Parts: sequence; structure tokens; C-alpha cells
Amino acid sequence: MHIHSSIAEMRAALTNRGRIVLVPTMGNLHAGHIALMTSARSHGDTVLATIFVNRLQFGPNDDFDRYPRTFQADCDQLAAAGVDLLFAPTEADLYPEPQQYHVDPPEIAHQLDGEFRPGHFRGVATVVLKLFNITQPQVALFGKKDYQQLMVLRHMTRQMALPIDILGGETVRADDGLALSSRNAYLSSAERAEAPRLHRVLNQVSAAVRAGEREFARLEREAASELDQHGWKTDYVAVRRQADLQRPQPREEHALVVLAASRLGSARLIDNVEIDAVGSR
Amino acid sequence: MHIHSSIAEMRAALTNRGRIVLVPTMGNLHAGHIALMTSARSHGDTVLATIFVNRLQFGPNDDFDRYPRTFQADCDQLAAAGVDLLFAPTEADLYPEPQQYHVDPPEIAHQLDGEFRPGHFRGVATVVLKLFNITQPQVALFGKKDYQQLMVLRHMTRQMALPIDILGGETVRADDGLALSSRNAYLSSAERAEAPRLHRVLNQVSAAVRAGEREFARLEREAASELDQHGWKTDYVAVRRQADLQRPQPREEHALVVLAASRLGSARLIDNVEIDAVGSR
Repeated sequence: MHIHSSIAEMRAALTNRGRIVLVPTMGNLHAGHIALMTSARSHGDTVLATIFVNRLQFGPNDDFDRYPRTFQADCDQLAAAGVDLLFAPTEADLYPEPQQYHVDPPEIAHQLDGEFRPGHFRGVATVVLKLFNITQPQVALFGKKDYQQLMVLRHMTRQMALPIDILGGETVRADDGLALSSRNAYLSSAERAEAPRLHRVLNQVSAAVRAGEREFARLEREAASELDQHGWKTDYVAVRRQADLQRPQPREEHALVVLAASRLGSARLIDNVEIDAVGSR
Repeated sequence: MHIHSSIAEMRAALTNRGRIVLVPTMGNLHAGHIALMTSARSHGDTVLATIFVNRLQFGPNDDFDRYPRTFQADCDQLAAAGVDLLFAPTEADLYPEPQQYHVDPPEIAHQLDGEFRPGHFRGVATVVLKLFNITQPQVALFGKKDYQQLMVLRHMTRQMALPIDILGGETVRADDGLALSSRNAYLSSAERAEAPRLHRVLNQVSAAVRAGEREFARLEREAASELDQHGWKTDYVAVRRQADLQRPQPREEHALVVLAASRLGSARLIDNVEIDAVGSR
């Protein structure tokens, strides 16, 4: 696996590489990332991973400084997964000067995670646009655990007329249901034992909706309350439309998704569960 | 010359075209545009012009509706100038849904023309980014008459890590000095006779600066006053640094530019004159 940090070298290495499949990451790779790499192989000729902890998408109180960085182990995993190329720029490579031009996403990016992480999706969209411009892939894969991110990037790509297919990879979970995440490393062992509740609660909401329950606001309140009674501090639990993360319209059938973000100890965990199309009366 | 309006057709027509040189326009072409097309020829293998009157860069009180549209004559001129391909999308092609993702430019885009045309450069940057993504050129040419636009697009391109060289074409002028512009068509014959004063006044400021004058604020006021005394309504006259359009720093040597926007009758005209590097004490 060839590793590049400079933009010019990365570009040079991508000539005559056929159909390029990009998998951007912030490193500290786990089985969820590796599943994306494996899936990527089937979508093109060259699998290109990136590792970059993007300061632009972290708020002043976010965990940029302590975000786990495990570069050598990441490289080993990527090589073992058959990844062809790794782009791992430094901040000086990607932001040689303060970033003054940004992608400005619409209102939906200021809801849900965007409400609790102001500027987050602006930072995500901007760095991903730069990565797209540098690597010019035909396909890019992102995990569904970051569901809102996937939607923002899919819409940005379409609205900016980028010739890139955006694909989502299924969330990979531990045996007890906890979605794999680099931020799970912040959990104490007691918190780790409690953490699967997030997924269980989302499954409960999903089951209630599938059973015909349509008082989404009550379901959301009850789910948040159950988490908070067990020591979580919940930012949101929300039933939304899969396509655009807007609130479901009454009396329309939509494919839905239940999303949540909640803090347990010093970790802020997010997760979601998709629900097939249901009427929402 | 092949003409395309759909994005998919345009993309298909651009495969195996070698080095692509893009010249975006809003149509109603004059000798300034044609000079860009001729220059484009020397920078690559395929010269691609675009014609699109971009609603996104017009304010509610701007001249979107009356902006001159002369498509057939434009096509004849482009073909005669040896342009290979024309991309002329409709609004439905380029904005099949309301544009919700934008390029957000920095503070400088809210000064000068940006102060008097709020959102203008956001609209320009967004549409040009889309045109770049659709056509993926190696080089793009823009006229220097829209000096601030050229700077914004150059900076956006660099900051978004787009592999595109942005080149500026010299302003083409009528014999009496008036910069060619589609908006000159709004002038009555009396106004047309008055219009060259804009360039004369900019030349006066330039001459004063080259002669050592450094009270830029006074020069700007006097220039605006001279215009206004002759029936103009001046938005600004400004001496700025060429590189970033910031105000010159005292006691530093900069390449400067004098820019102005002023309204004469129902036309809002802009122009500028570059000044070679001078100390600014």
C-alpha cells in the first residue's frame, strides 16, 4: 500500500488507476471502517483510503485534541484489507493557509447533530469536498452510523454536480449491539457495559413505529428519558425521514430512521436504526 | 461547434478531449469575451465556453430579468472564434432543485461589489464550482474587468484544492476607454458619451499613486466626487492590493489596483486599473 501526504504526490499516484473508490476516515480504524474498505473493492479498480482528523469539524469544546490517533496500526489494517493507496495529509498539507472558503450546508445541517455541534457539517462538507477535488473518485463510501453526515454529503455531491456516487456502509456492531466507534475508547468498563442501551432504545422506538405507533414526539421523549434515567445525557432522539432527515409528514408513507446522540461519561455516542417505509398518518 | 445543455451530455462530450480550457460567460458576448476565447486556444486542446445567466448571483433588485440574452448571435461568434464546445444549460439543467448548498466566501466577498450586491459572490462561487465539477477543466479564464470575481474564484479554487489554473484576461475597451460590458447596452446615447469618464477617473487615481500620492482615502473621495458631479451615483472607488483586495498596509510595497463601481442612468458599471508595485508608506 502506497502512502502519500502531499496533494501533488497523491494526484500523481492516481493517474491511470481506473475507477477510484474513496473511503475517507479519521483513522483509529475498527471493523466498521474495514468493512467499508472491503465493500469498496467491489465498486472500482483502486481503493483509496484517507486518514485525516479534520480540525474544521470539531467545535471548541469537542474532542479534537484527545481524538485517538493510531496511525501505524491503521496502516497495518488497511494494508491487510487490500487497500491500494492511503492519503494521509498533515494539517499543513490540507490547510496550508487558514480555510476561508467553506461549503455552507442548509438548515438541516443545523438540526440533530448540527444543533449540538455548531459548524460540524460545514467542516465535514468542506474537507470532504477538498478530498473529492484532490482524489477525483468515481465512488465514495461513508458509514451509516454517521447517518446525517452521509445525507449531507450525498446532497452536497448532488447539488454541487460532482460526478461521484455516494454509498453508505452498514453500521458494524459489537455482539451486544453497541455500534463500533472510535469514541467507544472514552468509555470506562462500567460505561461500556451500559453503552448498548443506546441501540436497544432505538430498537424499541423502531419496534413501536413498526407496530403502528405514530406519536413520534412521545416515543422520542420516552426514549431520551429511559437513557437519562440510566446516567446518559441525551442530546436528541428523533424519528425522521431517511431521505432528507426532515420530520415525517402526517398521512404520508416514508422510509424512516430513528437517530440519537447521547453522552455517557466523557463519550458522546451516536447511533441510528432504519425503519422500512411506513405510513405516518 | 457542439452545443450541449444537459450535464450528462456535456460530460460525455468531454471524454478524451485532452487539456480542457473553460471560459464561463453569461452570454451577450462582446470583444472582451472573444479575446478570452482566443487566448484560451493557447492554453489547451479543447476550448469550452459556457453561457448561463446565473440567477443565484443576482440580487432581488438586480437586472436578472432584463440582462441581455442573445444566444444565436453568441453561438455565431463562438463558432467563428474557433470554440470547440459550448455548454448552455437551462436553469432546470443546472438547478434541477433549489440550490441549498453554497460556497461561502470570506469577508472580502462582502466588501466592494459584495457590499453593494449582497450574496453576489456566493452565487458566483457556487455556480462556478458547479461548472468546474461538470466540466473538470485544467484551465479556466475570466476577464479582469470583474476583478474581484477573478480574485474570489482564484482563491476559492486554491482553497478548495481544485486542480485548475485560473487565468485572467485583460479588459477590452472601446476606443474612448469604456470597458466593454453587456451592461453598456443599458446606456442612453448621452450616457454612453459620459461613460468613459469612469476609466478616465481611475487613470487619474492611478497616475496620482504612481506619482507618489499615498492619501488613498482622499483620492478615492475625490474620484467618487468627480463622477457624482457628472450625474453618476458611485458605490465605491477603492485603492486595494491586487493579490487579495485588502487595503494597502502603510509602509509596505504592493501591486495595487484601483476599482470602482458607479451607476449611470439604469446601468451599474464597474471598472479597474492595475498599478505596478509601489511603496505605500
